[in-house]
Amino acid sequence: MGAESVWSVDPRTGEPRGGGPVAEVSGPAAVDAAVRAAHAALPALAERARRAALLRAAAERLHAAGPELIAAADAETALGTARLTGELARTVFQLRYFADLVDHAAEPGGFLDVRRDSADPGLTPPRPDLYRVKLPLGVVGVFAASNFPFAFSVPGGDTASALAAGCPVVVKAHPDHPETSERVAAVLREAVREVGLPEGTIGLVHGFEAGPGLVRHPLLAGVGFTGSARGGRALFDVAAARPRPIPFHGELGSVNPVLVTEAALTGTGADPGPGTGTGTGAAEELARGLVGSFTLGMGQFCTKPGLVLVPAGAAGDAFEKAVADAAAQVPAGVLLDARMREAFLDGFARRAGLGDVQTVAPAGSVPTPETPLAVRAGVLSVPAASALRGSHEALLEECFGPATVLVRYADPAEAEAILARLDGCLTATLHTPAADPDAPALLAALARFAGRVLFGGWPTGVAVADAMHHGGPYPASTSAATSVGATSVERWLRPVSFQTVPEALLPR
Amino acid sequence: MGAESVWSVDPRTGEPRGGGPVAEVSGPAAVDAAVRAAHAALPALAERARRAALLRAAAERLHAAGPELIAAADAETALGTARLTGELARTVFQLRYFADLVDHAAEPGGFLDVRRDSADPGLTPPRPDLYRVKLPLGVVGVFAASNFPFAFSVPGGDTASALAAGCPVVVKAHPDHPETSERVAAVLREAVREVGLPEGTIGLVHGFEAGPGLVRHPLLAGVGFTGSARGGRALFDVAAARPRPIPFHGELGSVNPVLVTEAALTGTGADPGPGTGTGTGAAEELARGLVGSFTLGMGQFCTKPGLVLVPAGAAGDAFEKAVADAAAQVPAGVLLDARMREAFLDGFARRAGLGDVQTVAPAGSVPTPETPLAVRAGVLSVPAASALRGSHEALLEECFGPATVLVRYADPAEAEAILARLDGCLTATLHTPAADPDAPALLAALARFAGRVLFGGWPTGVAVADAMHHGGPYPASTSAATSVGATSVERWLRPVSFQTVPEALLPR
Repeated sequence: MGAESVWSVDPRTGEPRGGGPVAEVSGPAAVDAAVRAAHAALPALAERARRAALLRAAAERLHAAGPELIAAADAETALGTARLTGELARTVFQLRYFADLVDHAAEPGGFLDVRRDSADPGLTPPRPDLYRVKLPLGVVGVFAASNFPFAFSVPGGDTASALAAGCPVVVKAHPDHPETSERVAAVLREAVREVGLPEGTIGLVHGFEAGPGLVRHPLLAGVGFTGSARGGRALFDVAAARPRPIPFHGELGSVNPVLVTEAALTGTGADPGPGTGTGTGAAEELARGLVGSFTLGMGQFCTKPGLVLVPAGAAGDAFEKAVADAAAQVPAGVLLDARMREAFLDGFARRAGLGDVQTVAPAGSVPTPETPLAVRAGVLSVPAASALRGSHEALLEECFGPATVLVRYADPAEAEAILARLDGCLTATLHTPAADPDAPALLAALARFAGRVLFGGWPTGVAVADAMHHGGPYPASTSAATSVGATSVERWLRPVSFQTVPEALLPR
Repeated sequence: MGAESVWSVDPRTGEPRGGGPVAEVSGPAAVDAAVRAAHAALPALAERARRAALLRAAAERLHAAGPELIAAADAETALGTARLTGELARTVFQLRYFADLVDHAAEPGGFLDVRRDSADPGLTPPRPDLYRVKLPLGVVGVFAASNFPFAFSVPGGDTASALAAGCPVVVKAHPDHPETSERVAAVLREAVREVGLPEGTIGLVHGFEAGPGLVRHPLLAGVGFTGSARGGRALFDVAAARPRPIPFHGELGSVNPVLVTEAALTGTGADPGPGTGTGTGAAEELARGLVGSFTLGMGQFCTKPGLVLVPAGAAGDAFEKAVADAAAQVPAGVLLDARMREAFLDGFARRAGLGDVQTVAPAGSVPTPETPLAVRAGVLSVPAASALRGSHEALLEECFGPATVLVRYADPAEAEAILARLDGCLTATLHTPAADPDAPALLAALARFAGRVLFGGWPTGVAVADAMHHGGPYPASTSAATSVGATSVERWLRPVSFQTVPEALLPR
């Protein structure tokens, strides 16, 4: 019996794309072979200069293969050439960024986090000579995301950070872009060969069952995951139930609330925050900003603002009207796959049907001959008092796709009650003038449940930076780690102390 | 119906101590009240100066109450006044050490781990102004250890590091020392009052069921545990199965192998490592060092060397003989409780009964009228080839109490095969001359499965230091974190990035 085939599907039509299958489903033997090959590559990755060279070679080759890769990704995801060009550039930047981190790993502030103590027998307890450094964890399993075929998939942040740490990876491809995954993996394998590392340094597996199989493999040492709360939790449970549990760093999505104060809409603050204008112009600018953010990439960002706290009353009404106007201007588009489209349309309709919920802009199907599966963005509005009811819980949860919910609060206590009901989030955004005397308390309230707090602006850009944190309390993340930025490397390292080891014998 | 009573038990006799019960078993309502009170204390702990003051006040008051606390602890644990005096001094030092870390938390290298990025719109993706800092996780549950009534119990490293991070704690007392726990908690509450923090800052609960109840509590944010593999894994599973999983930092024990080379015994290396002499004197000194280490505190240290790889042949035979002689000199003693005594005697007898295992020094019961439960230390020896058999697995696992196993290897490949079979360990120790050309490879092999690697010396001292790592691959630890030293604070913090937040509004 041969292996099952993996087909690439056109999200515009829901039909398998021509040209035949693009890969084979990875059975248990294929998963085992990939993990074993990766494990065998571990010693070769000990040399940091080689790791940095690999990351740079991968960046070069991905950049060179750009047009071909972007075409494949657009055919499979409908994310569009412009967006995918930017995403690939981000991915290339990210690989080089991690190469730079490897160069400086042993320096103060570098990710080896070297700490030294000299002997002091006079202390209680006595202190011996100690040298602490971080070592690679082992083989890392990476679960690619549907919504970022480059930046959070085969060549993405999990892969780049794991390689930087010295960990070989086995990537589980996302079924929404198997052809892109294969093409990217081929490019990465060329880079692996170019720098003389073992072929198994970067592995790729396909198929639903390969996921739990990978997480269960005795030689796997850790997991990076970007995806849904349901899928992520199932794999988290597999990782925790192993005879030897392994860390599972999952990023499971978030509703990303935005709190807009009356002063932000009316410009009554003396000193507007960044991105916050004044008066009616301010409300319109905010409305345009919000619509741009929640519809970016067809609302398929884990940082999409899905809940906006807006004051009741005239200023809030004007803002709601401006949001409706801006949403009506957004062109229809195609979601990543037919299942997500169904979930989006069902989720929007279910929320719209709840008591006291008004449809500000109707999401819905807008088929054309070329894109029979196209949909348009939607906006709902609900009084905070209604949103707090148990029956309305869905309004406080993520609806993946181009939709957001305006929650109209009568007073600060209502806004606070909504925030207190939210699950952990990746981001939380405050729009209020900097001179607002309540701003410090509001920022502190947002930091209680979010991993990134914005003052002004919108959450849908995630910079690759030293000070970035992309994660948050559960279910935003399954750990306290970030999946973007310099400190994401920490996920794949473990500290070891060397006691009274002669200088010449210490690992560097 | 009243609550069940908690009695203090005399480990020398196994009988409840006079004076009546020392506490009540904490039912679900008591656990809930403790966690809620701790949660209510969270905002008050935000002020770092107050946290440092609390740690210092606790240190002062524990030191002042020393005689009374040590007497109670000795009556409950039989660890002896000398050892307990040292342990309390270590605990007091540790509290002050964490207070110093709090003082410097915001500086470079401090545990807030502040990182900043300035805006750079020219990057791909563009970079906004970012400020990353670490915030307290929330209420921390601490599970006290049997074997350290001070240093790893109510006032121990988990409590001190959590308070340093800004997290209130609820401690689950260990049933081996409930009176000591109550007395220490009373002293800590005085310190809490002295610095004006809420009473709930440090809570204490008793009873088996309080353990899982604490871990399940919705307001608990993390757990620190020191104890057995079985108990730790059960609670780890509870933490992972929560609707919102929380980090479980458990330290579950370890066999702590020691690798002794022929050269270490015969002094054939040009440059002996620290603690390694030369020739016959070297072997005898090593034997005395080993026996001192594995019988320290009646072998009830998680870092006790429980497996010693010794070369086959004459030099190894002489070492084995020297170990037997030294072990015979060790006075009998009492274990922490009757259950541990049974497990120790059974475990030793079971291992001694395996094929090819020789009893070098017999562990056993040596009752006296005052200490009917006293036992003496034991040593076993087995050829490596036999220890590698599936039936002999117990020899490669921890036997809690004063026992160790000498595994005699015929060649380096046999020693390597034994090391490859070991579970994750807290420590691994190498005794060989520094000039041994194999030393770097041996150290690397040990670092693969251990969290602290010693060159010479013995693993049973754990310094409270910046560069200490006390943890290791599972089951030594359930996470990559350390439970001792500066970086143990990291367990109780989560990073948050603040984006384009005006300088004046940033949390410090």
